[in-house]
Amino acid sequence: MRRVGILTSGGDCQALNATMRGVAKSLYNMFDDVEIIGFEDGYKGLMYADYQIMKPSDFSGILTQGGTILGTSRQPFKQMRVPDENGLDKVESMKHTYRKLKLNCLVILGGNGSQKTANLLSQEGLNVVSLPKTIDNDLWGTDMTFGFHSAVEVAANAIDCIHTTAASHGRVFIVEVMGHKVGWLTLYAGISGGADIILLPEIPYDIHAVCDAITKRTKAGKSFSILAVAEGAISREDASMTKKALKEKKKNGIVYPSIAYEIGARIREVTGSEVRVTVPGHMQRGGEPCPYDRVLATRLGAAAARLIADEEYGYMVALKNNEITKVPLSEVAGKLKTVDPNCSMIKEAKMVGISFGDE
Amino acid sequence: MRRVGILTSGGDCQALNATMRGVAKSLYNMFDDVEIIGFEDGYKGLMYADYQIMKPSDFSGILTQGGTILGTSRQPFKQMRVPDENGLDKVESMKHTYRKLKLNCLVILGGNGSQKTANLLSQEGLNVVSLPKTIDNDLWGTDMTFGFHSAVEVAANAIDCIHTTAASHGRVFIVEVMGHKVGWLTLYAGISGGADIILLPEIPYDIHAVCDAITKRTKAGKSFSILAVAEGAISREDASMTKKALKEKKKNGIVYPSIAYEIGARIREVTGSEVRVTVPGHMQRGGEPCPYDRVLATRLGAAAARLIADEEYGYMVALKNNEITKVPLSEVAGKLKTVDPNCSMIKEAKMVGISFGDE
Amino acid sequence: MRRVGILTSGGDCQALNATMRGVAKSLYNMFDDVEIIGFEDGYKGLMYADYQIMKPSDFSGILTQGGTILGTSRQPFKQMRVPDENGLDKVESMKHTYRKLKLNCLVILGGNGSQKTANLLSQEGLNVVSLPKTIDNDLWGTDMTFGFHSAVEVAANAIDCIHTTAASHGRVFIVEVMGHKVGWLTLYAGISGGADIILLPEIPYDIHAVCDAITKRTKAGKSFSILAVAEGAISREDASMTKKALKEKKKNGIVYPSIAYEIGARIREVTGSEVRVTVPGHMQRGGEPCPYDRVLATRLGAAAARLIADEEYGYMVALKNNEITKVPLSEVAGKLKTVDPNCSMIKEAKMVGISFGDE
Amino acid sequence: MRRVGILTSGGDCQALNATMRGVAKSLYNMFDDVEIIGFEDGYKGLMYADYQIMKPSDFSGILTQGGTILGTSRQPFKQMRVPDENGLDKVESMKHTYRKLKLNCLVILGGNGSQKTANLLSQEGLNVVSLPKTIDNDLWGTDMTFGFHSAVEVAANAIDCIHTTAASHGRVFIVEVMGHKVGWLTLYAGISGGADIILLPEIPYDIHAVCDAITKRTKAGKSFSILAVAEGAISREDASMTKKALKEKKKNGIVYPSIAYEIGARIREVTGSEVRVTVPGHMQRGGEPCPYDRVLATRLGAAAARLIADEEYGYMVALKNNEITKVPLSEVAGKLKTVDPNCSMIKEAKMVGISFGDE
Repeated sequence: MRRVGILTSGGDCQALNATMRGVAKSLYNMFDDVEIIGFEDGYKGLMYADYQIMKPSDFSGILTQGGTILGTSRQPFKQMRVPDENGLDKVESMKHTYRKLKLNCLVILGGNGSQKTANLLSQEGLNVVSLPKTIDNDLWGTDMTFGFHSAVEVAANAIDCIHTTAASHGRVFIVEVMGHKVGWLTLYAGISGGADIILLPEIPYDIHAVCDAITKRTKAGKSFSILAVAEGAISREDASMTKKALKEKKKNGIVYPSIAYEIGARIREVTGSEVRVTVPGHMQRGGEPCPYDRVLATRLGAAAARLIADEEYGYMVALKNNEITKVPLSEVAGKLKTVDPNCSMIKEAKMVGISFGDE
Repeated sequence: MRRVGILTSGGDCQALNATMRGVAKSLYNMFDDVEIIGFEDGYKGLMYADYQIMKPSDFSGILTQGGTILGTSRQPFKQMRVPDENGLDKVESMKHTYRKLKLNCLVILGGNGSQKTANLLSQEGLNVVSLPKTIDNDLWGTDMTFGFHSAVEVAANAIDCIHTTAASHGRVFIVEVMGHKVGWLTLYAGISGGADIILLPEIPYDIHAVCDAITKRTKAGKSFSILAVAEGAISREDASMTKKALKEKKKNGIVYPSIAYEIGARIREVTGSEVRVTVPGHMQRGGEPCPYDRVLATRLGAAAARLIADEEYGYMVALKNNEITKVPLSEVAGKLKTVDPNCSMIKEAKMVGISFGDE
Repeated sequence: MRRVGILTSGGDCQALNATMRGVAKSLYNMFDDVEIIGFEDGYKGLMYADYQIMKPSDFSGILTQGGTILGTSRQPFKQMRVPDENGLDKVESMKHTYRKLKLNCLVILGGNGSQKTANLLSQEGLNVVSLPKTIDNDLWGTDMTFGFHSAVEVAANAIDCIHTTAASHGRVFIVEVMGHKVGWLTLYAGISGGADIILLPEIPYDIHAVCDAITKRTKAGKSFSILAVAEGAISREDASMTKKALKEKKKNGIVYPSIAYEIGARIREVTGSEVRVTVPGHMQRGGEPCPYDRVLATRLGAAAARLIADEEYGYMVALKNNEITKVPLSEVAGKLKTVDPNCSMIKEAKMVGISFGDE
Repeated sequence: MRRVGILTSGGDCQALNATMRGVAKSLYNMFDDVEIIGFEDGYKGLMYADYQIMKPSDFSGILTQGGTILGTSRQPFKQMRVPDENGLDKVESMKHTYRKLKLNCLVILGGNGSQKTANLLSQEGLNVVSLPKTIDNDLWGTDMTFGFHSAVEVAANAIDCIHTTAASHGRVFIVEVMGHKVGWLTLYAGISGGADIILLPEIPYDIHAVCDAITKRTKAGKSFSILAVAEGAISREDASMTKKALKEKKKNGIVYPSIAYEIGARIREVTGSEVRVTVPGHMQRGGEPCPYDRVLATRLGAAAARLIADEEYGYMVALKNNEITKVPLSEVAGKLKTVDPNCSMIKEAKMVGISFGDE
């Protein structure tokens, strides 16, 4: 009898269920005696032994279902070694649950922080296989994370809708795109949505360069400009400040709910244009996974099951040059995959006339 | 030779092109010698004689295209009698253009303000036929305006996306829905998106009733609550204040970019819940018209052409009990169709457990 | 203690779950002691006492889910009085189950045939409330059935896709649309998809009129023609034959899988054009309900619950002039709501240039 | 003054316009004096000098537009050396037009056959840059063709719709997927749609293995089975016959409009199941390009413009390991990229329980 634990950790995304289905269907097909234990709300379920014994039918019909049937929660890596409110050591609690349930291994679907914890558990002796989950696509070691392309579709669709209305009025429209501290989501959504200006965390913007790009369009007879702005976008000015100075500055200035509103205010100030802000927000994590993600999720899930069958632990499954492969958790943990400002995709985007607010 | 002017006025919406196509195809089919003059950017094009002579092919392939091929602008009714920056009387300018171009009639696609101007031009002796355009569905005299159901689809889709992510985390989510000063769009989007709480301008909310509804859900084991909030939603407190007092209050308080952020802050304060805000904004005006709107647009367009053929002017075409009919512009102008708080739809919504923050 | 049975009968459609959710949420909100019994696979579950006691959570999260959580089956009305393979009288079996379970009433979601059986059960003394389900919109007594607008969206989307490819090549494209023996679905999908020719069961077509319409378009420089053909479309020739003669004719001719292929062959023969056929088929019953249907379903569901609360039985809830109302089952049963060839919608469609193959 | 010809050839697909926009915007940004000549209906336009001088605005607003603004036609490579009806040599005509218009180079968007002709024109001395267009993804030398992922979305959506209706009834459903003679489209659509059985041209099926897979599902309590069948799928029996024998066999048997109907008839015969067939057909070429394709199209377009700037001719731009690169036309021409029955993706699909009818 083989017993496999599984959990989904961190911010949710679109193909979590599709991925778990891939793992589970493969395991049930390979082994007659496998039992899958689903932990509720991520690492929290593992800490406090909140779990359910899954039935094969639990994994049926969830390929296209957004969210996660197990629930999720954010358990910051930094606080893993901080005792909980009852004084319990979280890592020890997780190890305890793992052993008490006599798990053969633990399958973890998670993003950057969760991979660090996965690595920690692996180093502590648990058999861990992890899968690369995030709409941010910022995980080191894999070309692509599941969730990313689904989020691109939502954000691109937002820009599409703005496009038809923008073309009717003459205005500046800002769509704020998620992506945490990296620009992948905004870059893809911006290019596919036909944005005129794309602002990424990796390329601090000069507000005057941004306004110049807008003015140039107006002069060329274009009646509107659309900006795709990453939630993590930052001005050159702010990027050059120390964290402390930045905090101080923010404390004394106007508080904007998010960066798009701030940039909007600056553009209004400098150009006098009417500006409209759209914040799709959590929409980008929700809805159905797109077919691309469902294929990726299924493949990654099957590959994770194969690792379990081969008892190869301590790895994250990954996509590399269109093939599913594995990467040691120790290599993945703590590294961020950011957009290289000099990569060919940025160059290609500049060729078609997209401004990144940097020149 | 028959010469028909056409313009699209006010905020844009999804089936403007589909409607113009309906008018134009019908006219070209009925008359061999009709010429259609398209005015650019709404009434502004009529004022300053900015127009193009349309070709039949201009109306081909635009059935599913959002926005308006003619452009639009907001020309507030209140300022129609105020001379422009060059001292020109706007109404006289429009009449002048109409006569100079020897138009037989003028077709106007517009919402509330635009219908008032249409009525004014009609009273001034122009032959006017108008069509009910707005995502707000607030036009008196018609059961339905084109644009409305397309906007419902965008807003409902936003709530759908939030739903899958909300179900994974335990939080309060607020989706701000357009609709100007009426609640139709939020009501339909909220019901179809499965919102738990719907706040409309017509039913001022009590923030404590809202928070109670959230707490009740939490106690019943529901891990999240979704609010669909109209951009025009208003608290009981604010609704009971004079305009002046309200202005004063706003001047001294925190400035929120929109009502959803304000309500979010209050909920956070009262319940201690984590709150996330999504503002689809102008997305709701954009993208493709939904099939419902394309049918409605085509029917209204054909009916407007029929009025022109019959030389029946001074009317807005309308939908009444599933039939296309006509309403005198003088009856339409200046009236608002709001949501009756005691209507059966509100009652049905309450039956399935939706809270309107009023009890 | 109140016990309510519920079943979904006949071909499935998109808002069955949304409707049951509306009924159930309303019942649970109104009564503390209500128990809902769900019968499996339609009337079959009632006959053979295959059922489950539903929990409130069964109706959560199903608003946007296509299909039916209870399953469905086709139990032709004509065979209701024919004993089953074990000699059991079906109607008596259903009455027996109803009484054995001590049901207060039975809620039936069904189309034409199912409403006849609902009426029969009502006449036999059961307390019945029914709801108008069908993508065909052919139910007498209601302006609209749930499922219809969702099916229109699928069919219109099919035509949309064909449109962009048709515009690139020069060909005749036929999209076969469902709708059983009536033309509502094809009429709405055809208009909203921008079809050039629409063939309905209610307007038998003349193949030469159809080909003339195609040729006319070619001569006018249009490089393609798109036909929306109802699965029940019929040629004038066939419509004028006796059933027997028609059967004989079909026996001796080429067997086509469906009417679109037959019409395609004739067009190829007469005009020499290249013809492509698309059959979306059961896609039209599937996928998510559109927001329109979700609102309608919720309203109808709440209204059905209200009838149960008021112990008003023997009715189908219906939509009439935008209000939810009730119609006696005895009036609904056995009547078909067809498209009137002289209705204003057909006239409006003809005005914009759509051919119905009849002139 | 630089003059660049451009044409779209072969079956149309979703991101043709997006790709041309990428080429054109990049050229206009790089050169002040570039002139783009658009040939109508593919190579035909080049043969008969049917062209238009493009304006920059022609390439605005077409990023999301399906089809091709230039039109396309199929000009089989095999007939390129066969004189046309007026005795003209087609290749010489194309060279003549190219020279008469003093083109610097020719940009060709095309699939397999079109790339062969592109290579021929290159060998004949024209400066050619080509781009990989096809929903089939069967082009050698590139990991991905534009159009492919958009077609996957349409086909996967078809299977999704079928899924909800299939789950309500107990039946066998067949969705026929395009892809010409290769299985990529069916493989991706099948996996992402959650098909139970996938039949590809590269893996000839045994009808009994197919029926066994269905029966096995029925025995396991699954009430339905969904097959994704490539239009080029072939039975083992047929695959082992000579072309001549196969032709003979087909002449004497029942004529099915396509393979799905034939497989459906066999399954009905062997298993006695009710079978329903859905043929999305040309829908798969139509509609909007998905965001993935828009990014790919933009990148490929920019890269093609870069080749033109660098005067590097005789290449197809391609995607290799996520980077845009170039491949000599002489290497691309005449080679087919098929699905390797032993590739990891097939193995992963088998792990999750998908049958390919081969065992």
